Amino acid sequence: MNAVSLFDNISEDLPGELFTVLAAGNGVTIERIVSKGHASAEGEWYDQETREWVLVVKGEARLQFEGKDEMHLKTGDHLFIPAHARHRVVWTPKDRETIWVAVHFS
Amino acid sequence: MNAVSLFDNISEDLPGELFTVLAAGNGVTIERIVSKGHASAEGEWYDQETREWVLVVKGEARLQFEGKDEMHLKTGDHLFIPAHARHRVVWTPKDRETIWVAVHFS
Repeated sequence: MNAVSLFDNISEDLPGELFTVLAAGNGVTIERIVSKGHASAEGEWYDQETREWVLVVKGEARLQFEGKDEMHLKTGDHLFIPAHARHRVVWTPKDRETIWVAVHFS
Repeated sequence: MNAVSLFDNISEDLPGELFTVLAAGNGVTIERIVSKGHASAEGEWYDQETREWVLVVKGEARLQFEGKDEMHLKTGDHLFIPAHARHRVVWTPKDRETIWVAVHFS
């Protein structure tokens, strides 16, 4: 039972988003996602089998659900994403990390 | 699908720790806990049926597992607490909020 920091083990250079599983079990996965200028490709939507709860721990982002206006998420903002709610990351800042915690559950 | 801030809806005066369920389903509960000088009573241990993953989003705390040294948790620190791992919150600062996110799962 050792504590680990969400802010550790992030390399300076992130060619793609960094996904790290923090804990998992019984249909639940808790992961850290680090973005640095990353966004979903134009026209690319996440369409997930599982429910997701997501929190912006550091940084900020713009997120869009299909057919809806973009949302601006700032540090501390969280939301629940139902299964198959098509969504994409529109923007994250290039000059600093945005750190998310995502909990996926069925 | 609206975003909500972890930093909102915290009253100035917290007679006890504040527990707010953020999302739940299928044996999973995600909650926010706000502490402000709160700690477990002397000799009082949490002994939980479920597994817990906990993250300090803001503030800091000291946590102890039974028979182990105290751990200092700072902002960004997270850890996994197995079911029935007896533990207590030894200290949180009185002068500012400590905000935790806890995910309980079976």
